[in-house]
Amino acid sequence: MSFSFSVSHRVGAARAGTFLTPHGPVETPAFMPVGTHATIKGLSVEEVTATGAQMVLGNAYHLYLRPGDELVRAMGGLHAFARWPGPMLTDSGGFQVFSLAKHRKVTERGIEFRSHLDGSLHDYTPELVMRIERNLGADVIMQLDELIAGGADMPTSREAMERSLRWLDRCRAEFDRIGREGRAPLTIAADVEDLEAPSQALFPIVQGGTHADLPRGSIRGILQIGDWHGVAVGGLSVGEAKPDMHATLEACEPLLPAEKPRYLMGVGFPDDLLEGVRRGVDLFDCVVPTRMGRHGTAFTPDGTVQVRRAAFKLDRRPLVEGCACPCCTRYDRAYLRHLFNAEEMLGLRLLSLHNVHFLVNILVEARGHVAAGDFDAWSRAWLARYAGR
Amino acid sequence: MSFSFSVSHRVGAARAGTFLTPHGPVETPAFMPVGTHATIKGLSVEEVTATGAQMVLGNAYHLYLRPGDELVRAMGGLHAFARWPGPMLTDSGGFQVFSLAKHRKVTERGIEFRSHLDGSLHDYTPELVMRIERNLGADVIMQLDELIAGGADMPTSREAMERSLRWLDRCRAEFDRIGREGRAPLTIAADVEDLEAPSQALFPIVQGGTHADLPRGSIRGILQIGDWHGVAVGGLSVGEAKPDMHATLEACEPLLPAEKPRYLMGVGFPDDLLEGVRRGVDLFDCVVPTRMGRHGTAFTPDGTVQVRRAAFKLDRRPLVEGCACPCCTRYDRAYLRHLFNAEEMLGLRLLSLHNVHFLVNILVEARGHVAAGDFDAWSRAWLARYAGR
Repeated sequence: MSFSFSVSHRVGAARAGTFLTPHGPVETPAFMPVGTHATIKGLSVEEVTATGAQMVLGNAYHLYLRPGDELVRAMGGLHAFARWPGPMLTDSGGFQVFSLAKHRKVTERGIEFRSHLDGSLHDYTPELVMRIERNLGADVIMQLDELIAGGADMPTSREAMERSLRWLDRCRAEFDRIGREGRAPLTIAADVEDLEAPSQALFPIVQGGTHADLPRGSIRGILQIGDWHGVAVGGLSVGEAKPDMHATLEACEPLLPAEKPRYLMGVGFPDDLLEGVRRGVDLFDCVVPTRMGRHGTAFTPDGTVQVRRAAFKLDRRPLVEGCACPCCTRYDRAYLRHLFNAEEMLGLRLLSLHNVHFLVNILVEARGHVAAGDFDAWSRAWLARYAGR
Repeated sequence: MSFSFSVSHRVGAARAGTFLTPHGPVETPAFMPVGTHATIKGLSVEEVTATGAQMVLGNAYHLYLRPGDELVRAMGGLHAFARWPGPMLTDSGGFQVFSLAKHRKVTERGIEFRSHLDGSLHDYTPELVMRIERNLGADVIMQLDELIAGGADMPTSREAMERSLRWLDRCRAEFDRIGREGRAPLTIAADVEDLEAPSQALFPIVQGGTHADLPRGSIRGILQIGDWHGVAVGGLSVGEAKPDMHATLEACEPLLPAEKPRYLMGVGFPDDLLEGVRRGVDLFDCVVPTRMGRHGTAFTPDGTVQVRRAAFKLDRRPLVEGCACPCCTRYDRAYLRHLFNAEEMLGLRLLSLHNVHFLVNILVEARGHVAAGDFDAWSRAWLARYAGR
């Protein structure tokens, strides 16, 4: 068995566990940095590893368009291409089709869209997505789902949720077929040895937004379709109020298989991570640490801070006292402020690194406190300080 | 004595030596990476150190405008601010005033200009430049000189050369005065301990372009003004034909003090470095490795290469076989090409790192061949391969 999950400790719904993948273990709860184009923006593999991150993401939509999933497969797969030796996950790109692609048209068959890069036409079906993600070769691959805009009405949300279930069924069939029959031969001319298809796990995605009954229906549908190595919750953190997200997670939690990892997609900020852990979530991903880092905003235990602020002008203290990341152990606030004012790349690098380190290590700490049994008190104190209360 | 230079080996005019500074030795010939804004663009101090670079540059014009030379001094000086423990040099910014500043007006007094950042008016005199560079605190600081456009006529070139000599005289007087009387108190409110002024060396700059007699006259003028720890040659590599640059260096070489380091400013490309060494140059600097790196162009022993080229699409070889830099030891051509096509920051980082490593190590190798006595044969073979002959 290439995949397994075991929970070692619980505090209420919060869990400390270990998710085993063919490329090694992920100690949960865990934050997964996002490497959209097969690189965590601004950071080297060595730097990401040093943050403590164990599993990272790639994106099927982006890598399909550029450099192409067959090229990545010809180069030995996404692990070899990006030099990431540990566990990886690819998102199907459902979100990117909705946020980036042009002229998209959703039918029962799939999503037709024009590339945001060159306007070329693509027919993004569940079957194609499985072939792409099988070519990329990440350990965990995500189904194609239909996204709903935040605040969509109940019939629209229900329709998308039900279509996502039908697409899951087709993803599963194609995923299993490739597992049995192997991948199709490469159509690009590559003078390389094509490796055997790797062992992969397909994760379904709970949809339905915050319409209470819908995500519960989605979970029931997912579990009817088959057995899974893990389940993702999608369609949250898209603009809804935080209490609505929390209520949805609480409604889902009892229905999700207790012995499988739960992955809350696209979340999030430090407080979202701890609120998610409290509600039984094991895996998280978000582009926010690197995106904010590029814009000069840093996470601190006392909330976010903009490093261009005048108060940092002559400040020789590290960004966050006691933080073990290279940004905080080697540089001071005055220099960081200068790097951002001068628009120097090193500033983006250092702040991206700090922010990834910060999110990864909140969950490393959270794991310790679940194991120690004091997660509730610790996380409440952490959240109060972060909120400035 | 904080500064000294010793030549250990010679092959014709080429020398292998050691330039001692208060922050350590520089084994010459040496390439100095340029850290305009107190950072080598895209690279960390650890990465620059790992290339083998021993001495780096900062720029007085840029650091005076932002974050301000007094701020840098309050933060402990440029070494502490940028976390560079080794030897440093600041250029006076004469070149930047001519290339970046607006509405500049050159008078005998100095250069009046408006900042390219905010349009503020500045009166850049030799005295101000010395105060700035004394505040920044690099080991070697450069005089303010008047640049001439490439191809300027003889009278214009002579006038600028002679003015640069008069400015050198004033730089020297102010440099010595600050040495005797110490730096002025900080005018910015900084709650920090102001350190003692560091030991620094002022370098004069030979001017006159390629008008044969002018740079020779400049050298004679420089040596009349005083004794120096080293001499720079400026105003070359500004568009003149390479044979003209070589002829100028050959005309200067016999007049330059044999027992002092010679620094050829703003040069250059791999072939320029070896042609300079052959003509007695010890120190070089240029922005080209990081600038080209950001644009996807890499140095190789067979000339430059654009990494976006289609031929790299499925190429699993390192950029340069046998190169010891992190870009070449860890990544392949296909991935580099992808990073540039996807406009990912890691691509700029890796190529900047490779190019700096490449130039630094050409001169490390050159030094070894001067010491071994076979510099001529080795450098001719190197240049022939680089030129594709």
